[in-house]
Amino acid sequence: MNFKIDKTDGNARACTLQTAHSTIQTPIFMPVGTLGAVKSLDAIDLKEILDAKIILANTYHLYLRPTSKVVREFGGLHGFSKFDRSFLTDSGGFQAFSLSKISKPDENGIKFKSHIDGSMHYFTPKSVLDTQYDLSSDIMMILDDLVALPATKERIDLSIKRTINWAKIACEYHKSNKQKSVGIDQNIFGIIQGGTDYNARKLCAEALCEMEFDGLAIGGLSVGESNEEMYDTVEALMPFIDKNRPRYLMGVGTPEDLVQNVERGVDMFDCVMPTRNARNGTLFTSFGKINIKSAAFIKDDNKIDPECDCYTCSNFSRGYLNHLYKARELTFFRLASLHNLHYYLNLVKQMREAIMQGKFKEFKREFYAKRGMI
Amino acid sequence: MNFKIDKTDGNARACTLQTAHSTIQTPIFMPVGTLGAVKSLDAIDLKEILDAKIILANTYHLYLRPTSKVVREFGGLHGFSKFDRSFLTDSGGFQAFSLSKISKPDENGIKFKSHIDGSMHYFTPKSVLDTQYDLSSDIMMILDDLVALPATKERIDLSIKRTINWAKIACEYHKSNKQKSVGIDQNIFGIIQGGTDYNARKLCAEALCEMEFDGLAIGGLSVGESNEEMYDTVEALMPFIDKNRPRYLMGVGTPEDLVQNVERGVDMFDCVMPTRNARNGTLFTSFGKINIKSAAFIKDDNKIDPECDCYTCSNFSRGYLNHLYKARELTFFRLASLHNLHYYLNLVKQMREAIMQGKFKEFKREFYAKRGMI
Repeated sequence: MNFKIDKTDGNARACTLQTAHSTIQTPIFMPVGTLGAVKSLDAIDLKEILDAKIILANTYHLYLRPTSKVVREFGGLHGFSKFDRSFLTDSGGFQAFSLSKISKPDENGIKFKSHIDGSMHYFTPKSVLDTQYDLSSDIMMILDDLVALPATKERIDLSIKRTINWAKIACEYHKSNKQKSVGIDQNIFGIIQGGTDYNARKLCAEALCEMEFDGLAIGGLSVGESNEEMYDTVEALMPFIDKNRPRYLMGVGTPEDLVQNVERGVDMFDCVMPTRNARNGTLFTSFGKINIKSAAFIKDDNKIDPECDCYTCSNFSRGYLNHLYKARELTFFRLASLHNLHYYLNLVKQMREAIMQGKFKEFKREFYAKRGMI
Repeated sequence: MNFKIDKTDGNARACTLQTAHSTIQTPIFMPVGTLGAVKSLDAIDLKEILDAKIILANTYHLYLRPTSKVVREFGGLHGFSKFDRSFLTDSGGFQAFSLSKISKPDENGIKFKSHIDGSMHYFTPKSVLDTQYDLSSDIMMILDDLVALPATKERIDLSIKRTINWAKIACEYHKSNKQKSVGIDQNIFGIIQGGTDYNARKLCAEALCEMEFDGLAIGGLSVGESNEEMYDTVEALMPFIDKNRPRYLMGVGTPEDLVQNVERGVDMFDCVMPTRNARNGTLFTSFGKINIKSAAFIKDDNKIDPECDCYTCSNFSRGYLNHLYKARELTFFRLASLHNLHYYLNLVKQMREAIMQGKFKEFKREFYAKRGMI
């Protein structure tokens, strides 16, 4: 993977990543396409309407259904979904932890019960890479040992010990595979754990930065801690993450979270928030969130956001969307998802432009001012 | 409404209808957009992907939600949904009959209980036109007295007596409204009832053809009778329906039903079958129906129908669709609906081409041959 820093503005960075499938300008937000489809959208929507350069797919889900072996038969995720730009796949560890009724990490991996049919499975640092080779993702995430917050010091220490150990195994396994021409176009990112314990985070970051990862992710945030704890942890951690590699904050977050963390030096984000909120009728606008089901919108012929030029805002009114939502029409989900993802992708694009112009502070001030938040 | 017969081939006809919003070449199939949206699709899908010239919306549903008064505020259905071609709206009578828990027709109209909130409502021949003026549809259907089949002779006689009486009231009401500049761009179709009783059908058809309707519909079929009874009733009835007006067979049907009834002289159709079947995983192809959830498609990289050039077939494989269906991904519903509607719209287009070339018989033979049905 080629990576270069185009411009910095304070700690905020505008970078360019090049994978085998696309050129990605950061800061970037990755829409979540859990099962090889962003919910309610298809590959044409993502490319032609949203112009997304990279999306995320979930290894846990695809491993269970249709299975990574089936995806491999179609030429990996690109051939299966027909989204021929970049895919990042997680390791599956987070879902084994959050979705499975039984989830037991041990020294060698994570044992879990399928949420679909109750069958037992075991993820190891090597097995999750094998699955991701089948998926043929452009960026693979390593298996990490996640802990819910708040957590005891003992549990956090165990988590980073395991995570570092698994990272070593993964890094060496990928290196040896590439020598055998397996996964040669696939990149691998390490995941820094440590909860909100700055010392544990630092230890983990330093250990992982010594390994040959193509990028580094901050995992285990946005799992119960306050916003301020998250921002402070990222800020404290950032000096210990190699600046010459992309930095990815996993599973984050709100528009405010994106602005705060870009300011602290994060390059990449993913979150189900824009698509999940869309399906619940919560739509993002430049002046804050609205809930489209409000009776105030019944006769409203305006677009969702007066400043938005997305597919949905270019064509449909708040009144029509209010009606579709209340009638539970399937049409609503796609229109709302397109709007919310456009909002997120436009937000990171605006942040990049601001960084390129050395005006990130001004951008941030205006972002909050419009929301009546300063 | 301008109407002309472009060509006949046996009893089959190719005609052209001109409304204030679009030119419609027949035979035509109208996708059903119950609530002002064809389920899972939007106006851009209908215009740019499917090139539908006319769709149907349901008066009963829109009257209850968001209410026709709200739709009127947006400039009727065209302004509300942004589908700026033609709309046909039914009278609401069929849904008052089929969806409402309590539905009581009397001499003056139909009393029914809302399936949404249980409130009581009363549809009359005039009130359903008032609602359709608010909806601003291009073709309005009159209130008719529908009966479930099989029905007694007494019930059928009562039905056609009421239907003829209500038709007179509607026709005169619309005429007087147009003189007051209400609904001047809106057309009105009569509905012929009479079950499978040829004599009742003939009586009803003759009475309605004497009135100033812009078109004539056959109602009360596809409600429990056999296919052969339906085809025979249409065939027996057709000589008594004015050939110089469009002839619309309501709520029909399967691809075979369309071919059989075009052969008998029907110009227009509507049915939820392509969209409802799509949502259940049943997809139409030139060689018959398939169910995409079949395990046979898990690793199938072919398109749904080798002869199809629809959006879905141009982009996605059976294997991916099988996966999306089984995972209940929202994306599936739109892709399947686009395919099935393309199939129906392409079928009527092919029939028109065959009629224009005087080759309807050959078309029909090939249609059945491909399905292994002759």
